[in-house]
Amino acid sequence: MNKFTDTSNRKMAKLIKKKKHEIGLSPDELIFRGTKKTEKVLLRIIDFDANSLIEEVVKKVKDIVEFQYKDTVTWINIDGLHNTEIMQELATTFNFDSMVMAEVMNTDARPRVIEYDNCALITIKMLSQEGNSGDTIVENLSLILTESVLISFQERRGDIFEPVRERIRKQKKRIRNGGTDYLTFALLDIVIDNYLYVLSLLGEKVEKLEENLLVNPGKDVINQINSYKRELNFLRKSIKPAKEMIFSLAKMDSELITEATDVHFKELQDNISQASDVSDGYRDILSDQLNIYHTTISSKLNDIMKFLTVFSVIFIPLTFIAGIYGTNFEYVPELGYKYSYFIMWIVMIAVAIGMLIFFKRKKWF
Amino acid sequence: MNKFTDTSNRKMAKLIKKKKHEIGLSPDELIFRGTKKTEKVLLRIIDFDANSLIEEVVKKVKDIVEFQYKDTVTWINIDGLHNTEIMQELATTFNFDSMVMAEVMNTDARPRVIEYDNCALITIKMLSQEGNSGDTIVENLSLILTESVLISFQERRGDIFEPVRERIRKQKKRIRNGGTDYLTFALLDIVIDNYLYVLSLLGEKVEKLEENLLVNPGKDVINQINSYKRELNFLRKSIKPAKEMIFSLAKMDSELITEATDVHFKELQDNISQASDVSDGYRDILSDQLNIYHTTISSKLNDIMKFLTVFSVIFIPLTFIAGIYGTNFEYVPELGYKYSYFIMWIVMIAVAIGMLIFFKRKKWF
Amino acid sequence: MNKFTDTSNRKMAKLIKKKKHEIGLSPDELIFRGTKKTEKVLLRIIDFDANSLIEEVVKKVKDIVEFQYKDTVTWINIDGLHNTEIMQELATTFNFDSMVMAEVMNTDARPRVIEYDNCALITIKMLSQEGNSGDTIVENLSLILTESVLISFQERRGDIFEPVRERIRKQKKRIRNGGTDYLTFALLDIVIDNYLYVLSLLGEKVEKLEENLLVNPGKDVINQINSYKRELNFLRKSIKPAKEMIFSLAKMDSELITEATDVHFKELQDNISQASDVSDGYRDILSDQLNIYHTTISSKLNDIMKFLTVFSVIFIPLTFIAGIYGTNFEYVPELGYKYSYFIMWIVMIAVAIGMLIFFKRKKWF
Amino acid sequence: MNKFTDTSNRKMAKLIKKKKHEIGLSPDELIFRGTKKTEKVLLRIIDFDANSLIEEVVKKVKDIVEFQYKDTVTWINIDGLHNTEIMQELATTFNFDSMVMAEVMNTDARPRVIEYDNCALITIKMLSQEGNSGDTIVENLSLILTESVLISFQERRGDIFEPVRERIRKQKKRIRNGGTDYLTFALLDIVIDNYLYVLSLLGEKVEKLEENLLVNPGKDVINQINSYKRELNFLRKSIKPAKEMIFSLAKMDSELITEATDVHFKELQDNISQASDVSDGYRDILSDQLNIYHTTISSKLNDIMKFLTVFSVIFIPLTFIAGIYGTNFEYVPELGYKYSYFIMWIVMIAVAIGMLIFFKRKKWF
Amino acid sequence: MNKFTDTSNRKMAKLIKKKKHEIGLSPDELIFRGTKKTEKVLLRIIDFDANSLIEEVVKKVKDIVEFQYKDTVTWINIDGLHNTEIMQELATTFNFDSMVMAEVMNTDARPRVIEYDNCALITIKMLSQEGNSGDTIVENLSLILTESVLISFQERRGDIFEPVRERIRKQKKRIRNGGTDYLTFALLDIVIDNYLYVLSLLGEKVEKLEENLLVNPGKDVINQINSYKRELNFLRKSIKPAKEMIFSLAKMDSELITEATDVHFKELQDNISQASDVSDGYRDILSDQLNIYHTTISSKLNDIMKFLTVFSVIFIPLTFIAGIYGTNFEYVPELGYKYSYFIMWIVMIAVAIGMLIFFKRKKWF
Ligand SMILES: [Mg+2]
Ligand SMILES: [Mg+2]
Ligand SMILES: [Mg+2]
Ligand SMILES: [Mg+2]
Ligand SMILES: [Mg+2]
Ligand SMILES: [Mg+2]
Ligand SMILES: [Mg+2]
Ligand SMILES: [Mg+2]
Ligand SMILES: [Mg+2]
Ligand SMILES: [Mg+2]
Ligand SMILES: [Mg+2]
Ligand SMILES: [Mg+2]
Ligand SMILES: [Mg+2]
Ligand SMILES: [Mg+2]
Ligand SMILES: [Mg+2]
Ligand SMILES: [Mg+2]
Ligand SMILES: [Mg+2]
Ligand SMILES: [Mg+2]
Ligand SMILES: [Mg+2]
Ligand SMILES: [Mg+2]
Ligand SMILES: [Mg+2]
Ligand SMILES: [Mg+2]
Ligand SMILES: [Mg+2]
Ligand SMILES: [Mg+2]
Ligand SMILES: [Mg+2]
Ligand SMILES: [Mg+2]
Ligand SMILES: [Mg+2]
Ligand SMILES: [Mg+2]
Ligand SMILES: [Mg+2]
Ligand SMILES: [Mg+2]
Repeated sequence: MNKFTDTSNRKMAKLIKKKKHEIGLSPDELIFRGTKKTEKVLLRIIDFDANSLIEEVVKKVKDIVEFQYKDTVTWINIDGLHNTEIMQELATTFNFDSMVMAEVMNTDARPRVIEYDNCALITIKMLSQEGNSGDTIVENLSLILTESVLISFQERRGDIFEPVRERIRKQKKRIRNGGTDYLTFALLDIVIDNYLYVLSLLGEKVEKLEENLLVNPGKDVINQINSYKRELNFLRKSIKPAKEMIFSLAKMDSELITEATDVHFKELQDNISQASDVSDGYRDILSDQLNIYHTTISSKLNDIMKFLTVFSVIFIPLTFIAGIYGTNFEYVPELGYKYSYFIMWIVMIAVAIGMLIFFKRKKWF
Repeated sequence: MNKFTDTSNRKMAKLIKKKKHEIGLSPDELIFRGTKKTEKVLLRIIDFDANSLIEEVVKKVKDIVEFQYKDTVTWINIDGLHNTEIMQELATTFNFDSMVMAEVMNTDARPRVIEYDNCALITIKMLSQEGNSGDTIVENLSLILTESVLISFQERRGDIFEPVRERIRKQKKRIRNGGTDYLTFALLDIVIDNYLYVLSLLGEKVEKLEENLLVNPGKDVINQINSYKRELNFLRKSIKPAKEMIFSLAKMDSELITEATDVHFKELQDNISQASDVSDGYRDILSDQLNIYHTTISSKLNDIMKFLTVFSVIFIPLTFIAGIYGTNFEYVPELGYKYSYFIMWIVMIAVAIGMLIFFKRKKWF
Repeated sequence: MNKFTDTSNRKMAKLIKKKKHEIGLSPDELIFRGTKKTEKVLLRIIDFDANSLIEEVVKKVKDIVEFQYKDTVTWINIDGLHNTEIMQELATTFNFDSMVMAEVMNTDARPRVIEYDNCALITIKMLSQEGNSGDTIVENLSLILTESVLISFQERRGDIFEPVRERIRKQKKRIRNGGTDYLTFALLDIVIDNYLYVLSLLGEKVEKLEENLLVNPGKDVINQINSYKRELNFLRKSIKPAKEMIFSLAKMDSELITEATDVHFKELQDNISQASDVSDGYRDILSDQLNIYHTTISSKLNDIMKFLTVFSVIFIPLTFIAGIYGTNFEYVPELGYKYSYFIMWIVMIAVAIGMLIFFKRKKWF
Repeated sequence: MNKFTDTSNRKMAKLIKKKKHEIGLSPDELIFRGTKKTEKVLLRIIDFDANSLIEEVVKKVKDIVEFQYKDTVTWINIDGLHNTEIMQELATTFNFDSMVMAEVMNTDARPRVIEYDNCALITIKMLSQEGNSGDTIVENLSLILTESVLISFQERRGDIFEPVRERIRKQKKRIRNGGTDYLTFALLDIVIDNYLYVLSLLGEKVEKLEENLLVNPGKDVINQINSYKRELNFLRKSIKPAKEMIFSLAKMDSELITEATDVHFKELQDNISQASDVSDGYRDILSDQLNIYHTTISSKLNDIMKFLTVFSVIFIPLTFIAGIYGTNFEYVPELGYKYSYFIMWIVMIAVAIGMLIFFKRKKWF
Repeated sequence: MNKFTDTSNRKMAKLIKKKKHEIGLSPDELIFRGTKKTEKVLLRIIDFDANSLIEEVVKKVKDIVEFQYKDTVTWINIDGLHNTEIMQELATTFNFDSMVMAEVMNTDARPRVIEYDNCALITIKMLSQEGNSGDTIVENLSLILTESVLISFQERRGDIFEPVRERIRKQKKRIRNGGTDYLTFALLDIVIDNYLYVLSLLGEKVEKLEENLLVNPGKDVINQINSYKRELNFLRKSIKPAKEMIFSLAKMDSELITEATDVHFKELQDNISQASDVSDGYRDILSDQLNIYHTTISSKLNDIMKFLTVFSVIFIPLTFIAGIYGTNFEYVPELGYKYSYFIMWIVMIAVAIGMLIFFKRKKWF
């Protein structure tokens, strides 16, 4: 069965990882606050406008310098955040406050949008399905947006942005004519589409559960409900603050985001709202399923207990009668009559039937 | 018993259907993201002003072209969204951004209002009762509103708008004198009226349940409560985002909606709020009914168990006494007395009556 | 016991009555959407200013015409809404949009305030106690407010406004000097005072219940709690949207409401807020009572079951001992000793007392 | 044990007292709507500025007249509200609308702030501890604030304002230099401090309960929890609307409140928010305690029932074996063997021990 | 096991400490309202700008005077609040309203921001881990912010600000170039980082609990859940009002906070929001764990009871049969047959097996 996991840590309850030595650091201290998930840092560049397209892997930050002065849209994707030198070089190259890079390196923080003098920082949690295990992987995505450059920072290799790269390569009009703001939308759109996709996979499992619930409510059902609730809480942990972030992004009054992309950011709002609605909906469904499970189980137990109790109760007076005639008194008139034994049987059967009728009428079983 | 169903899929838990290949599509990619519910696309036109009325079925999009330059109100209704060519032609004809058509084709999205340069898009879920099965059908409705044309897109044939067509045909003053904004109101009004109607049908069933609940709370009652809760959650899934949409529509500051229709959009707000209130109310009632059911059942079980336990307990000392005189000791003085057996009976009856009085006084049964 | 009822329909669960043929009607269609609660329509007029007072029952709408041109305040009260002709005449006489009259005839809608060009429409649910049965009656009240005329529409004869009429007749300064806006306040004030009154009657019953709850928690208690919860939900159904309506009325920026009455509309807000608070409070109290009831009942059952079980358990080893000496083995040494029988009794009593002490120490009964 | 009580009525559930004859009164009708809590009306005056101080008890309203024209701050405190004449005289003397006095006499209404042309009315519920019984007393406080006069109305003698009087007498700089607005703050501050004090007394009791809960969870614990919940609901009934009132007072844009006192009204907001937080906190604690109590009780009952059941079950096969050899068949081979009886005992003991081991391994007791 | 405690009082339920004599004090009364947690008052000064750094411990307030006229940033840290004289001197030296100092001395109040004419007061609760016991300590922190001086007041020696002092000493550019507003941010940042750290420690314990819950749900588990819930409520008590305070601080429009630090205060908002989210998350997890615990326990009990009941029920008819043939009737035909005893055994075994099969089929055990 597939599970939802953080890439580095399979325990799910840990909602926060705050290490003692991280307390009180300067906001521009370039220290990687997260879990190292890749060995080497990989820098990839896609530089394009309506007519031209350059796509290459670069080795050093200085290879990027040339792109920033071009009028084209430059998308720099960086996998791996632990290399402080590279971060420092990036800050120097693009003239970012070192605080910006420090924020990028803090992967445990909440999704947020921060405007700086010459750029804006957007962070969000990415959810994706791991190919082999079917596990859901969480990864922090940071985007630094300037007028002509978009830098995306990921924690490890492999990502969900291939469809955007394809659209750029296939010269799709809208993305090739758009600016860095449209590219930002395109990336965030995929992130949120993946929220919906992961929710829909969970939904399928919940749906199957619904069927089991009515047919055969065994103990695995309760375990599954609890496991799905935990998965859902895990997803909600990313979705709820992402919704806040997307809404404050849409309200943000920055020159970096042109009016032409307003309609797209509105779409992001609709999609993240849908993700939030759906996660609320599944929470309610799981909660209802839990109630139905308990009701079914307890109703089944009640039926058994009622049956067994009625069964016992019928034998109680019969056993008592037998006890009476098991006494060793010298003078018990009934003992000597020839048909006493048979009469006893008849009385016993009559008592049993009488009680059965009484219980049946009372609808006790 | 009638059920609530999506037209194409009878399983209800699925709150979202996100397919992997839909992730990362360009927002203007004309791909039908939904379930095909009709074979052929049907285009119907009603063109009217206070004095004239044309109503016809057209075969091709180009037959529509002429209408858009007329001063009259043109209502184009299109059943079936899967034909990409037609969508493309519509975009070209009316000079819509292809993004608009892409939105129309995305039938799984949340109800929303989007303003574009030359039009506004409104989407909402339509609920209606299927004639034969009594099932409730959900269908996505998209409206593209321009100054003189209203295009409505439905997923399949048959709709709930016949009363509006009748009002147009019967030359009702208000609708024949109104613009596309009034027509939009008229359509949305019917959609919301149907929400209220479907809720009132559910209400009738809940009401009947209330009677059964007190008279004869069998297992079918709990199943019905759970089934109605599920139906209600299904309705709420459409009503809650529709309310958000209607309220943001009423707040929208667009030239496409004249001040004269403000009062009508206010009415839509009142009606959708009522639908929301009512759905909240039924949720509370169903939740109360569930509690009453559990209380009734558990109180009934308690009574049975108390009765059976008291019954057993009365026989316990009697059987013990009989056991005492069933022992085979050689010297048991009582065994030899002539009236011992009868005295035993008297003692037993006294003990039984004493216990009955004790239990009765304690109000234990 | 008195109950809360809709005047025409004793079933309470029905939160909405939407008939199929009402769907898609034009907003100015003069069709009575409600339940006919009176046979003949009654028109009563009170026309007054500081110095003059006319009070009369008129037969036809045209008898009203003269009043609308006078500078005095004219209060027209109409009982019965089903007569379409009268409604049409009123619209014509006062030059109202027929949409206004259609709204008045829709008695099932939500309390609301709507501003029109030459008037404002205010609707609210009236609660009152029926003299004979003590039942609470719900009735829809609609007020059309113009500069010099206030028309009130009620569903049936008999109302709660007699104190206002008395104040007018007794020449109370404030009401005789006020305009239609002050008269509107006076009527709404009575409506809300009646909410508080009906709540206080329910409160008395809840209070009495509290006493029964601790003294004698029988099954009638649970039925009463559930019945009061239902009554309260019924009241909340009127109070909650009325609160919304009153608050939006106070915020409304209309020339029909002068600044001098602001302080009075503030009072309405305070009173409806109090009604809402109180209804919340009783809901919490009833919910607490339900918990106390269940706790008491279950604690009582536990005590009984513990007692009976302890009682049974004490006899179990005793009956076992008797059974041992009821066996028919040829060589059972104890059977032949003279005092065996008495020793058995002593052992049995010792076992019973030992168990009693053990259970008592464990505080099991 | 001390209880929370309304001064006139020990029953707590009554959240509202609306009498039938109070419905529809004119808003300026001088009728006392409350419970008479003192016989004679007492008028006390403190008139002061930085340099002078007059403190006296006056007999008639006309003795007050002189003070209103002085530049000093005049605090008129009136105990007892039932005397309509005095109220009328006050209105005449200070030129208040009679509506103001009517509001003051309506002691059952919700805490509120109302601005009039020449004054502002502030009402709030005062909580205080009665010296003898330790009961909490609720009393309605009304303050009429003008530029140089503050009139406070209380329902009965004895109040919580002595510290303010002391500060005035001791010539504390701030209060002697402040205006009526600062005096208003000083009085409201004491009222809210008393909310916190009463909450802290309840808190002590809840804390003691916490200890009992773990040591000895008897039936008195559940009664105390329920009683504290009721006390808390009673306090919340005053605190929640008081919070609303204080916040709207702080937002009020009146000339009667100078900017210099803004910081003090901010403090009132903080304090009432703390009272509200604390009352929420205790509600959660009591709710948790209730859960812990139920868990403890049910876990104890389960242990008892498990023990008793296991005990019974062990004897069942033993008694069965004894029964077998109590049968009177002529040919039962075992009966004749010499050691049968002892073998039976050995078998029985083996069965009992075997079952005990089985149950122990299963951790059933 | 470590516990969360107030430094002076180990009882946790007390949400508020309001002493009777504190009621009605003047807002500028310099009375220490808290618990004395240190003997001697300690004054420490750090005075710095980009180039210079003075760090010293001073004995008297007058030693501070010189610093306030310098252009440098002066951070005065004061441990111990009970010395009224020192407070008075501080007020005189810095020309603060004595009300400011009174607020500082009121350590039980709610976290808040207050703007005064020449300074701003910020208060917040500090959480920190005590070295020895692992207990969490709560301490009130007050910050008085002026243009060039920041005074911090703590209740006792030892604090969490060492990292900031280190950054100042190590000449970190940002803090040495910043003003008092940046220093304020740096201190609050550490406070909130500690919230997250304390939450993450609790999170680890909750995580461990999760494992125990499934493996071995003993009574200690329920006690731990309840204890963690109490710890969490204790943390929430500090976090929730701190969040309110931080948000109103960020919205505050004061000249004391320059635009350059806006981005830092935004970070505080994100961090405190994360703390709030995480505390909500753990509340939900603990609540789910409680449910899982109860379900597991009750399901285990049900299994035991079902087993025992089925076991008993199987012996009931067997014991009855033995009872029948233990009767002493003279004419019982079966008693004389040679194989009766063996037939009885066969019948008994058949009955037992039949019942076992029946119960097995019904899945009753
Ligand atoms: Mg939610
Ligand atoms: Mg909801
Ligand atoms: Mg939530
Ligand atoms: Mg929620
Ligand atoms: Mg929800
Ligand atoms: Mg919901
Ligand atoms: Mg919900
Ligand atoms: Mg609700
Ligand atoms: Mg809701
Ligand atoms: Mg609701
Ligand atoms: Mg409700
Ligand atoms: Mg509700
Ligand atoms: Mg409510
Ligand atoms: Mg509420
Ligand atoms: Mg509530
Ligand atoms: Mg509440
Ligand atoms: Mg509610
Ligand atoms: Mg409440
Ligand atoms: Mg609830
Ligand atoms: Mg609350
Ligand atoms: Mg709440
Ligand atoms: Mg709360
Ligand atoms: Mg809380
Ligand atoms: Mg809470
Ligand atoms: Mg709740
Ligand atoms: Mg929360
Ligand atoms: Mg909360
Ligand atoms: Mg939550
Ligand atoms: Mg919450
Ligand atoms: Mg949650």
